Amino acid sequence: MNRDPQIDSNGKLVHLLSIEGIPRDILISILDTARSFVSVTEREIKKVPLLRGKSVFNLFFEPSTRTRTTFEIAAKRLSADVINLNVGSSSQSKGETLLDTVANLSAMHADMFVVRHSQSGAANLIASNVAPNIHVINAGDGSHAHPTQALLDIFTIRHYKKEFAGLRVAIVGDILHSRVARSQIHALTTLGVSEVRVIAPATLLPSHLSQLGVQVFRNMTEGLRDVDVVIMLRLQNERMNGDLLPSAQEYFKNYGLTPEKLAVADPDAIVMHPGPMNRGVEIDSSVADGRQSVILPQVTFGIAVRMAVMSILAGQSQ
Amino acid sequence: MNRDPQIDSNGKLVHLLSIEGIPRDILISILDTARSFVSVTEREIKKVPLLRGKSVFNLFFEPSTRTRTTFEIAAKRLSADVINLNVGSSSQSKGETLLDTVANLSAMHADMFVVRHSQSGAANLIASNVAPNIHVINAGDGSHAHPTQALLDIFTIRHYKKEFAGLRVAIVGDILHSRVARSQIHALTTLGVSEVRVIAPATLLPSHLSQLGVQVFRNMTEGLRDVDVVIMLRLQNERMNGDLLPSAQEYFKNYGLTPEKLAVADPDAIVMHPGPMNRGVEIDSSVADGRQSVILPQVTFGIAVRMAVMSILAGQSQ
Amino acid sequence: MNRDPQIDSNGKLVHLLSIEGIPRDILISILDTARSFVSVTEREIKKVPLLRGKSVFNLFFEPSTRTRTTFEIAAKRLSADVINLNVGSSSQSKGETLLDTVANLSAMHADMFVVRHSQSGAANLIASNVAPNIHVINAGDGSHAHPTQALLDIFTIRHYKKEFAGLRVAIVGDILHSRVARSQIHALTTLGVSEVRVIAPATLLPSHLSQLGVQVFRNMTEGLRDVDVVIMLRLQNERMNGDLLPSAQEYFKNYGLTPEKLAVADPDAIVMHPGPMNRGVEIDSSVADGRQSVILPQVTFGIAVRMAVMSILAGQSQ
Repeated sequence: MNRDPQIDSNGKLVHLLSIEGIPRDILISILDTARSFVSVTEREIKKVPLLRGKSVFNLFFEPSTRTRTTFEIAAKRLSADVINLNVGSSSQSKGETLLDTVANLSAMHADMFVVRHSQSGAANLIASNVAPNIHVINAGDGSHAHPTQALLDIFTIRHYKKEFAGLRVAIVGDILHSRVARSQIHALTTLGVSEVRVIAPATLLPSHLSQLGVQVFRNMTEGLRDVDVVIMLRLQNERMNGDLLPSAQEYFKNYGLTPEKLAVADPDAIVMHPGPMNRGVEIDSSVADGRQSVILPQVTFGIAVRMAVMSILAGQSQ
Repeated sequence: MNRDPQIDSNGKLVHLLSIEGIPRDILISILDTARSFVSVTEREIKKVPLLRGKSVFNLFFEPSTRTRTTFEIAAKRLSADVINLNVGSSSQSKGETLLDTVANLSAMHADMFVVRHSQSGAANLIASNVAPNIHVINAGDGSHAHPTQALLDIFTIRHYKKEFAGLRVAIVGDILHSRVARSQIHALTTLGVSEVRVIAPATLLPSHLSQLGVQVFRNMTEGLRDVDVVIMLRLQNERMNGDLLPSAQEYFKNYGLTPEKLAVADPDAIVMHPGPMNRGVEIDSSVADGRQSVILPQVTFGIAVRMAVMSILAGQSQ
Repeated sequence: MNRDPQIDSNGKLVHLLSIEGIPRDILISILDTARSFVSVTEREIKKVPLLRGKSVFNLFFEPSTRTRTTFEIAAKRLSADVINLNVGSSSQSKGETLLDTVANLSAMHADMFVVRHSQSGAANLIASNVAPNIHVINAGDGSHAHPTQALLDIFTIRHYKKEFAGLRVAIVGDILHSRVARSQIHALTTLGVSEVRVIAPATLLPSHLSQLGVQVFRNMTEGLRDVDVVIMLRLQNERMNGDLLPSAQEYFKNYGLTPEKLAVADPDAIVMHPGPMNRGVEIDSSVADGRQSVILPQVTFGIAVRMAVMSILAGQSQ
C-alpha cells in the first residue's frame, strides 16, 4: 500500500483524514497545541491572527449545522475567511463531479477544505487530488472516520485523567454504524490506553473488532465495571424502529446509561457523549446533567482542538 | 413573581427579551447610544471595534432573512464574528431539545444569542438557562414580543417629533397577532406618550387592551383624527383568506391607509410600517412612498438601534 | 434612449450590468486592475483593505453556489463585510416587491449589490432605483448578460494570447439561451478581435446574430479551423431531453469538443469553459484536462476580475 496521504515525506501532518495512521507524537502535539487554544477561547478578545488571509471552505455534501458551526467558529477565531458551501443543493445537482467541484474551489486559491460527506473515503479522494499547499480535514465521511471528534475525546480524557496508561475506557452503543467509534478506538490504542472495551447488542457490533485490540461486552454491568471513562454513542433515529433493534424503550432498558448502571464504574469515572443526545434513549438525563458528565466541556475542547488542527496544517504551507 | 430576568441586581440590562419591564431610563440610554451609531453607519468605513473577538450567534428557529440580516450587519459593523444558524433544519430535527442546543453553543464560548422562535417565551427560556456572561436578544418570539422593532420605532418617533409627551400615536391593523404591537404599546406608554390608540376590526383586537392604557377604535377616520404618528402593521397573508377577515380588498377599503384617510391626521404626522409591506392591502403606495412616510428611515435607524443594544449588553460582561 | 446607466456623466463606471455599452478603455482598465489582484491572491496573506467597512450584499434571487462563492471570496479578500441573501426563500415569498426589498437593504447602508436573477433586466431595474452611492453588479440575469464571466474570459484570452487583434475566437454550443455568449460577443468585438465565430445547431441559434458581427457555423470542423481560442458553453440539463435536441449523445457526437475536432484549430489554441462542465456532453474529458485547457486558470482569474470590478466601483463613491 501507499504511504499515508496525511503525512508528508518529512513526517509532517498535511491533512487530517482519519486517526488511523497518525503516529503517537503527532497526536500528542495536536493535544498540546489545543491546550494553548483553550486559553484563547476564554479571553475577552477570542481571536489570534494565525490564519489571517487564509480561505477555509466548509464543504458540506451532507448537512450538519452543529459540526459546520464548530469549524466555522474555530476558523474565525484564527482570523481566517470562511466560506460555507452546502454542496448537496448546488453544483452536484448540476451534474458536476466531486473532483471538478473541488478543482474549481482550489483554483480560487483555497487554503483548506473541511469536508463532510455521506460516502466513506470522500475526504481521502479529495486529499489525493488537491495541490500540495491545500489541506483537507475530514469532518465525517460515511461510516469511515470523524477524526476531530476522536481528538476532542482524547483531549477531554487527558484533561480529566492526565495519563492514558492504566485507563479503562468503555465505548457504548451503535459501534457498527459509528465513524466516531472507529476513530476513538484508533486514538485510544495509539495513546496506550490499557483497556478499550466496547459494549453493544450483537446486531450493532461489527465482525472484525477483536483485530482492533478491544474487548467486547454485550452486558452493561460487566462492561462498565471499574472503568475510568464511559463514552456513550448517539443512537441514530433510523436505527430505532428498524430491523436491528426492537424499540427505543428496549434499548434504553438494556444499554441506556442510568445512575444504577454507572454505579459499577469507578466512582470518579467521567461520562462523555459526542452529541446531539437522545435523552431517555442512550442516556438518562440525571447522568447527562450529573456530576460525572463532561459532555459540555467536550464541546468547549472541540473548538480548541479544531483550532489546533487548522493551525498545524496551515503552518505547513508557510 | 421573580425579578425581571433582563435586569441584573445592579439595574443593568443583561438581556433584551421584551420592552415590558424595562425602565424608562434604560430605554432612553438605548436611544441615546443608538444616536451615536447612526453617524457610524454613515461613515466611509462603517466599523467600530466594540465587539471584536466576540461571537454572536443568530439562532433562527423560524426563518426571517430580513431580521437576520439587520442583526448580522449590526454585529459585523461592531466587528463581531457572526455565526448564522437556521436551527429548524438541523439539530432540532435530530431530536435534541432547545436547551441542549443552546447549552452546546454556549459551551463554544458564545457571547450573544439573537433568537427568533415561533413560540412565545422561547427567548426568555434561553435567557434563564445561559451562563451569566452570555446575553440573549429576542428577535421575535411567537406573538409575544419583538423588542428591537419597538425600539427602532420609538427611535424614529423621537427623531422626527423630539418629545414623547403630548404625542398622539395610532397603531393600525392586526393587533391580535402582532408581537410588534405589544412591544410598541409598552414602549410608548413607558416613555410618556399622551395618547396611544389602536385601530382594528373587532376580530383582530385582543380582549385585554384597555388594561394596557390604550384607546380602542374600529373606525379609521375617528382613530386617526389629529394623530402625530401612524404605525401601520403588516397583515399576515394567512389572515387574508381566513375566518377573521372577509378579503384583502375589504380590509384595504376599511383599514388600508390611503391619502384620504391620512388627511384627518395632523398635517405633519409621520407614517411608519415595520415591513415587509403589502402594498394595496394595509397601505396605499402613494402613502408608502409619500412625503409623510418614514418607513425607510426606520430601517436605517434599526441598524443603529441593534448596534446600540448589542454594545450595551456586551459591555456588561467586561 | 437614455444614456447607459452603467456610466456616469464623468465617464466613470458606476454599475456593471452588461458588457454592451462599456467602452474599450474601461474594459482595458478593468483587465489591468485585475492583473494586479492576481498577485494578491497568490500571497501568503490574500487580503487588501480596499473595501474595509463596506457592506456587500450577495442578492441571489436564483440559487448559484458557485457564482455566489466567487463574489464572496473576492469581497472578503478586499476586506468587505459580506451578507449572503437567498431572496427566493424569504421576503419575495412574503409578497414584497423586488424594489421594496432593495430599498430596504439600501436603507441599511449597503454599498454594493451583487445580483443574480432569473429575469432579464433585473439588475438594470435595481441599478435605476438605488441611491447614487450604491453600486450594482449583475451576476447573471435571465438570458440577458453575465458580464463578470465575459470579463474573466477576455482576461484569460489576453493572458495567453497577449493581443486581441488578429485572433480567431469560436464560441460553441447553446448560443440561444446563453447570457454568457451574449456578453462574450460584445466584449470580444469591442476589444477588436478579428473574427468571432459561433458554432451551434440551428435550434440553439438566435436569429439576430449577424447584426452582432459574428460568423455563424453549424459544423464544428469548419467553425474550429485555425481558431486561436475555443470557448465551450455549458449545455443546460433541461435542454437535453427537450424539443431542441435529440439527445445528449447526439449532441456530443456533433458538437462535443473531442481531440479530433480540436485538431483542426491552431495547435496553440486554448480551450475555455465557464463551468460547471458536463463531461461527455459538451466536452470530452481528455480535452477538459488536456494541454490546451485553461479552464481552471479561468476560475483563478475570475476572482481577480471580480476584485477589480468591486474596487473600481467602490472607488467611485469615495
